[in-house]
Amino acid sequence: MGGNTFGVLFRVTTWGESHGEAVGAVVDGCPPNLELAEEDIQQELNRRKPGRGQGASPREESDRVEILSGVFQGKTTGTPISLLIRNRDRKSSDYDALAGLFRPGHGDFTYLKKYGIRDPRGGGRASGRETAARVAAGAVARKVIAGAGIKVLGFTVELGGVTIEEGSRGDIRENSLLCPDARAAEKMIDRLEAARREGDSLGGIVEIRVSGCPAGLGEPVFDKIDADLAKAVMSIGSVKGVEIGAGFRAASMKGSENNDPIVPGGFKTNHAGGILAGITSGEEIVIRAACKPIPSIAKEQDTIDLHGNPRKIAVRGRHDVCVIPRVIPVCEAMVCMVLADHLLRQRAIS
Amino acid sequence: MGGNTFGVLFRVTTWGESHGEAVGAVVDGCPPNLELAEEDIQQELNRRKPGRGQGASPREESDRVEILSGVFQGKTTGTPISLLIRNRDRKSSDYDALAGLFRPGHGDFTYLKKYGIRDPRGGGRASGRETAARVAAGAVARKVIAGAGIKVLGFTVELGGVTIEEGSRGDIRENSLLCPDARAAEKMIDRLEAARREGDSLGGIVEIRVSGCPAGLGEPVFDKIDADLAKAVMSIGSVKGVEIGAGFRAASMKGSENNDPIVPGGFKTNHAGGILAGITSGEEIVIRAACKPIPSIAKEQDTIDLHGNPRKIAVRGRHDVCVIPRVIPVCEAMVCMVLADHLLRQRAIS
Amino acid sequence: MGGNTFGVLFRVTTWGESHGEAVGAVVDGCPPNLELAEEDIQQELNRRKPGRGQGASPREESDRVEILSGVFQGKTTGTPISLLIRNRDRKSSDYDALAGLFRPGHGDFTYLKKYGIRDPRGGGRASGRETAARVAAGAVARKVIAGAGIKVLGFTVELGGVTIEEGSRGDIRENSLLCPDARAAEKMIDRLEAARREGDSLGGIVEIRVSGCPAGLGEPVFDKIDADLAKAVMSIGSVKGVEIGAGFRAASMKGSENNDPIVPGGFKTNHAGGILAGITSGEEIVIRAACKPIPSIAKEQDTIDLHGNPRKIAVRGRHDVCVIPRVIPVCEAMVCMVLADHLLRQRAIS
Amino acid sequence: MGGNTFGVLFRVTTWGESHGEAVGAVVDGCPPNLELAEEDIQQELNRRKPGRGQGASPREESDRVEILSGVFQGKTTGTPISLLIRNRDRKSSDYDALAGLFRPGHGDFTYLKKYGIRDPRGGGRASGRETAARVAAGAVARKVIAGAGIKVLGFTVELGGVTIEEGSRGDIRENSLLCPDARAAEKMIDRLEAARREGDSLGGIVEIRVSGCPAGLGEPVFDKIDADLAKAVMSIGSVKGVEIGAGFRAASMKGSENNDPIVPGGFKTNHAGGILAGITSGEEIVIRAACKPIPSIAKEQDTIDLHGNPRKIAVRGRHDVCVIPRVIPVCEAMVCMVLADHLLRQRAIS
Repeated sequence: MGGNTFGVLFRVTTWGESHGEAVGAVVDGCPPNLELAEEDIQQELNRRKPGRGQGASPREESDRVEILSGVFQGKTTGTPISLLIRNRDRKSSDYDALAGLFRPGHGDFTYLKKYGIRDPRGGGRASGRETAARVAAGAVARKVIAGAGIKVLGFTVELGGVTIEEGSRGDIRENSLLCPDARAAEKMIDRLEAARREGDSLGGIVEIRVSGCPAGLGEPVFDKIDADLAKAVMSIGSVKGVEIGAGFRAASMKGSENNDPIVPGGFKTNHAGGILAGITSGEEIVIRAACKPIPSIAKEQDTIDLHGNPRKIAVRGRHDVCVIPRVIPVCEAMVCMVLADHLLRQRAIS
Repeated sequence: MGGNTFGVLFRVTTWGESHGEAVGAVVDGCPPNLELAEEDIQQELNRRKPGRGQGASPREESDRVEILSGVFQGKTTGTPISLLIRNRDRKSSDYDALAGLFRPGHGDFTYLKKYGIRDPRGGGRASGRETAARVAAGAVARKVIAGAGIKVLGFTVELGGVTIEEGSRGDIRENSLLCPDARAAEKMIDRLEAARREGDSLGGIVEIRVSGCPAGLGEPVFDKIDADLAKAVMSIGSVKGVEIGAGFRAASMKGSENNDPIVPGGFKTNHAGGILAGITSGEEIVIRAACKPIPSIAKEQDTIDLHGNPRKIAVRGRHDVCVIPRVIPVCEAMVCMVLADHLLRQRAIS
Repeated sequence: MGGNTFGVLFRVTTWGESHGEAVGAVVDGCPPNLELAEEDIQQELNRRKPGRGQGASPREESDRVEILSGVFQGKTTGTPISLLIRNRDRKSSDYDALAGLFRPGHGDFTYLKKYGIRDPRGGGRASGRETAARVAAGAVARKVIAGAGIKVLGFTVELGGVTIEEGSRGDIRENSLLCPDARAAEKMIDRLEAARREGDSLGGIVEIRVSGCPAGLGEPVFDKIDADLAKAVMSIGSVKGVEIGAGFRAASMKGSENNDPIVPGGFKTNHAGGILAGITSGEEIVIRAACKPIPSIAKEQDTIDLHGNPRKIAVRGRHDVCVIPRVIPVCEAMVCMVLADHLLRQRAIS
Repeated sequence: MGGNTFGVLFRVTTWGESHGEAVGAVVDGCPPNLELAEEDIQQELNRRKPGRGQGASPREESDRVEILSGVFQGKTTGTPISLLIRNRDRKSSDYDALAGLFRPGHGDFTYLKKYGIRDPRGGGRASGRETAARVAAGAVARKVIAGAGIKVLGFTVELGGVTIEEGSRGDIRENSLLCPDARAAEKMIDRLEAARREGDSLGGIVEIRVSGCPAGLGEPVFDKIDADLAKAVMSIGSVKGVEIGAGFRAASMKGSENNDPIVPGGFKTNHAGGILAGITSGEEIVIRAACKPIPSIAKEQDTIDLHGNPRKIAVRGRHDVCVIPRVIPVCEAMVCMVLADHLLRQRAIS
């Protein structure tokens, strides 16, 4: 199966290649009678636009979403919501030079192995462009969970090796990297500029926090809500690691440290990241995603051509230096989808 | 939905509570004509038995699997394989004292919030006992992928804060912790003994490696094979973090460092952990899972009772000190399931 | 995929061969806090027992169901309910004579073509015995819908060419065929006896009526409730036709005849069979299933052996003459599952 | 869940309302490297265009399909194929007069009960217009199965009470009703004209035949291929009954008549309609679908308004008199989807 659908009850199917006609999403299972306007979706899309943040490429992707179905007089009808985003800025020529080469760190090689066919225009379905459809669909999910008082917010905790001071609570809107530690943000920006000059790229870590989530969401065993969150976030192209709450740090803690003592009114600590036995506890949900550096770099690298001959490659094009901050709304969108799905699933048995 | 089924084509449904009659699994979609005997499954179950490794509890869980369907004269028939494991050693009395208290770090609280009903006998479906059914089903998955030359092997890379030396390649069968660094293993065992004496528990990190996997498995976008692996591994109760290849380390690398240069015959490095754009590259697949310390500890902790009153709790029972090494065959089982599923999915379009 | 799971939220997975160890079902997604006892399930199983009705074989299948999980102190817990029925009366010897022959009207030929393997013992998964697991799971579904006031009742409307008088409303418990027309039932019984003497078999038509179903269940487009009912009922081995409401008769009606006029309080007629545009209308749901004659007959028939040579076959064994009335609880079980599933799905968006 | 997706491996998701911007489909799981052009799809869409056949309305729906993704240089790439059909001829005014009334035989009433919201423009998702997306997606499925030598052909066997002579084998392209009995077709056309004059509508029966299908497709138990075909066909709005092979006639046959004797090289008869135990036998697959008369009629009928008051309604608009022959390509499309799905599923285990 193509694997382009996500969710059980709140189901999102995305489609579209980076240099094709358009990308889009069909949202099936959205409850009726929610207010939904193109503007709700557009504002999320604008957050992942290039030019947002120092790491961004100069490309202009003026994504405009059209709602083609599922909404009548400003309200959802319960039928599938089809979202369309035309690809306006398609320059395949940038990619022509690479048509015969596999780009290191990219899906060129594995796509060819899988499908036995090669669409050389910018990575096709493996391109970051695919995430525009996720963000659009995530905006619908956000509406669904907002009705239950749930809020999802992502921010930068590490970039290019610079980590924020733990517990930083600065206003993330005050810098282009959505970083709650203004001092760290400055250093991150320096690293981004340096990497750009070197023709290199950087990675980083995004944290997503969910507040207002009621206890009781998530299914035991395989569809634990943390398992679904892990899948959701790991399905973003650049993500190579996911952790919940204390995450990898929990591995070196003792039970007496890691357990969150229960007190009247809640939990004393939140190492669990808001999830116990795969079910939300009512505490804040905390997810971190490790993003690898963008593989398209101007620096020369070893590769092979389609015939297996050794070659050198330098990917010029117009590429971001780091997926942060543009990946943040994508992470949020995926988290919103998981929450919307589990919210509906819980309603079914309540 | 209950969320007790995993996989699209190779589908595993598990059932059973820790202190009920039995646990079991139904494996649907297994190809016909594979040799399969109870002994194949039993040997995997024996690997997760208590008493394996220093971290284990003295309980005797002599799990015996019965194949109730789907096999005729030693071969799979293509119909569902039903696996049954009776619960022999059910002592609910250990839990009676806790019936009115929520155990910190456990699912008691969230299960009650979700279902509005409470089965106090040992955690029910949230118990580690549930993983016996996963291991049994994973043994069938292992048979499926073995036919394609795929091998899955897990081992210990960190326990109680002790980390193996990078690149250790010792024989993991030489110590009870399945640790490839014999010196580190000794320290880990010391930590386990100390924690047991203190009535405390420890966490650790497991690495799972998949060798012999052909390129081309995995689906783009949502069902990337790394996304499915992340879900599979994160769905194990004690796991709080998952990473692929360089994982969280990739976040602080540059593109020129993290990209794996391609050369005739393969890749120079394997930071990608064998997966590019969600599809296997033919290199070794590398997954790491961070396991939290076991929440059941004899040390006294703060909690509340069912009426919300503050209370103290000390969980006596017969509990392991660390999920490692018993969680290793569970991690392997989940990885085998993902690979079996994607192997069949790829065959469908080839 | 094996295709042994049915439903989206209320999910039933069945397993087991007619002459293996046992048959069983796992019910996932059942809401918690429903009262459920083995006796609730047993009484449904008893309804499909051989010896019920003139058409039945003299075999003794004293099916005893065990609930292995998902129920605590008489109430469902929300976790999977595992149901086990041991096969007590396994006589493979009856089938030995047939091991090398394909039985006309049976799945022997197609199973071999599909799986390339042959389990000659009584049809394996294609046997009517498989339906015991459906009936057991259907009993759980019946509990779910009973909570919403929904009742499902099946009865005989045709057997061996004898049709009941339209509108018959006799007590179906007064004859062994669950037929509301006592006079027709007598004739049907005569036909059954005659067929038995001839070593032949008969078919018939079952009607299932659902009362008390609220309006609004069913999903537009593919998962219309009538589409799911059609699949559910057609998935029973002997069923070759399904119709809703006026069904095939509607094909020869005019719109002005077939349309059900709407009046305050409901509909004047019910040609729609309680379903409009795939969604329940609040009227009685009416489904009819055409059952073919049982293919196992003592009369000699042409067939081939495994090598493709022409042969004669006469299936002796202990076979029913007609699937009616034993198929009636099976039809009801499938209808109950569809209703339980759609009831939960509707709750999710309400 | 919305229920707007069909299939397990070959998955079709449709969207769009009759009087919205567009309708469309996303086809996920189509194998790569198949030749596919817009023209392949367009020619199927043209077959369901109004004005085809005497029963058609004078509306002009010049449906033009756009392929937005999944095809590169005339070949499928294995990624989702997005198909878009703009709604050109949207005249909501016809429906204004009906905005406050429930149309008998339509989904107005049940949609409102389900969703609590009302989109009065032409039936929204319950309109026959929705089937354009099915036909478009079905054209892709047809390509998939054509590669395996499978052909799907539908024709008219009954209309307005006129039935073709059994075994008619006339050229269906010689009359507008795709009827293999030219004499019956003339009578059907007379009935259509009479019904149109009376402001009434007619129903009929379509037969679909699948030739060239290999033995071995279909899954045991719930996903029998006949069960999936029944769901597929019953999910078409006007269909109220489905039968396979001898269908309802089998109910009055004896086993010795209905069983298809097996001979070297195949089966003597085909009462089974090409399917045994839910798996294809290699014989021709025979499906019949009973279509109700179109509910929108000019004749006055009883109904109620939104407030429950009794009213009279006469639906003027531009409506067909009978869904035949336009429903034939829709039936074929659904059958093609089922076959494509099961073909891929069978490849996965072979």
